[in-house]
Amino acid sequence: MVSEGEAFCPGHVTVFFEVHDDPDPRKKGSRGAGLCLDLGVHTVARVRDEARSSIDVIVNGRRQKAEVTQRVAQRVLGDRSCEVKILSETNLPVSQGFGVSAAAALSTALALDDALGSQVPRDELVAIAHETEVECGTGLGDVVPASLGGMDLRLKPGAPAHAEVRTFPVEADLLLAVIGPEMPTKTVLRDPKKVAAINRIGGALVDEFSRDPTMERLFELGARFAEGTGLADRRVLEVIRASRMFGRATMAMLGNSVVATGNREQLATLYLKFGTLQRCGVDNEGARVL
Amino acid sequence: MVSEGEAFCPGHVTVFFEVHDDPDPRKKGSRGAGLCLDLGVHTVARVRDEARSSIDVIVNGRRQKAEVTQRVAQRVLGDRSCEVKILSETNLPVSQGFGVSAAAALSTALALDDALGSQVPRDELVAIAHETEVECGTGLGDVVPASLGGMDLRLKPGAPAHAEVRTFPVEADLLLAVIGPEMPTKTVLRDPKKVAAINRIGGALVDEFSRDPTMERLFELGARFAEGTGLADRRVLEVIRASRMFGRATMAMLGNSVVATGNREQLATLYLKFGTLQRCGVDNEGARVL
Repeated sequence: MVSEGEAFCPGHVTVFFEVHDDPDPRKKGSRGAGLCLDLGVHTVARVRDEARSSIDVIVNGRRQKAEVTQRVAQRVLGDRSCEVKILSETNLPVSQGFGVSAAAALSTALALDDALGSQVPRDELVAIAHETEVECGTGLGDVVPASLGGMDLRLKPGAPAHAEVRTFPVEADLLLAVIGPEMPTKTVLRDPKKVAAINRIGGALVDEFSRDPTMERLFELGARFAEGTGLADRRVLEVIRASRMFGRATMAMLGNSVVATGNREQLATLYLKFGTLQRCGVDNEGARVL
Repeated sequence: MVSEGEAFCPGHVTVFFEVHDDPDPRKKGSRGAGLCLDLGVHTVARVRDEARSSIDVIVNGRRQKAEVTQRVAQRVLGDRSCEVKILSETNLPVSQGFGVSAAAALSTALALDDALGSQVPRDELVAIAHETEVECGTGLGDVVPASLGGMDLRLKPGAPAHAEVRTFPVEADLLLAVIGPEMPTKTVLRDPKKVAAINRIGGALVDEFSRDPTMERLFELGARFAEGTGLADRRVLEVIRASRMFGRATMAMLGNSVVATGNREQLATLYLKFGTLQRCGVDNEGARVL
């Protein structure tokens, strides 16, 4: 028997954050704030009963190792014996702070559960995606807000049972600009100096944002975080500063890229000097089975 | 001993073409016309003498199968026994008609030859990259023009000893817009109906372009090719038509994307409705060791 499930998970930009370590990957994660994008990962899971299990992950038509997605599929599959094909499509770039690995993981969990008809509770699927991201070192805090949609303020880290997240529906016309090479999350989170800088600044910003959780404030605190932590290089800082003439921009964590809102034509003209440009809106629904 | 070589190969947009089949991959290829981009693939080859040969290909920091690059490296390496690392970086998207596989192949051939100090004649390195592309089915005509730079008119197909190519240095501020999913070259070239449509139209356009090889004509004939062959879908055609208000655009073969020139601000505003946007110029130098 062949069955199919389909899901979408929005991309998610973390704007500032603080790392919370914990031996339990469901408790480990980040506090922070960000935005869900209406661009994301669309996944179809195709399942066939077979004597031996196999999981193939195909992203944008190409077979990929995709460790996070593989492991998530393995966990959702459990001890069933099936041939699984995970077909994911996205037009967001990877390792640029748009939460693609989180969106791939969560859309895979939702689509595969749907295909199997196993009806694992949604919170458990979100927890599986979160803990796998954390274990693989590809992200700390994108899965849970991507499951919810909107603008988020993450007050406590971890998977659903542990996290405390406030979300705010917002409307915005956004520009995403990729202005430098990929920035693998793993590399940054392994550097104790960078993590120290992140935590020195990130925690205070979470508290500050919780007193006035508006889009304007999100961008303002984000720009402060990007500069204060040293995560933004010269070009990213230049772009953030120059954007103030036409709107506001902040760095997408962790990527050499920015998210911006304001006068789109003028911002676009500015960003084209630096790199690749994409337009999107905010997703206020969160990850969903289709 | 560790040695290193470094090379850049421009991306290349084929604007229209005609397929020429031949059992000899050095004679097989396409006639056509296109443009070299000043975005491309930058490759570092690192070589160490070892008892057993190995070739690792890392693209944008990620280990990849990259069949074309693997095979090119194998051929350039020959029967030497070395540990080879091919480190390629690009900010062009793959399978969108920007000649990334050709640029990866040729920059690898040049960089690895440089690292080995083997001084294979340049034409032979270009031929190796061309024949490997052809054998893998990932392209037919990007390697040779990418080796030369500028705007090209390819009058005879194949590798350097067989090809006849005229190139024209041009200056242009270009916009690249990706407006649909990846279009693997292999899939299109395996479809006899599509190849028949390409050849019915492509050959005549090559002849027409050879009488008036200007940028303006290139874009005009390209738009005709995209529409006449049915390679452009509804959205690509809509973008090409709408671009006429602010400049001109044509489809990048083979990709769901366009290359455009004209009033950049207005074109950018238009394209942002459709997809991802990047700015570049023309590369008039061609592939080179750095």
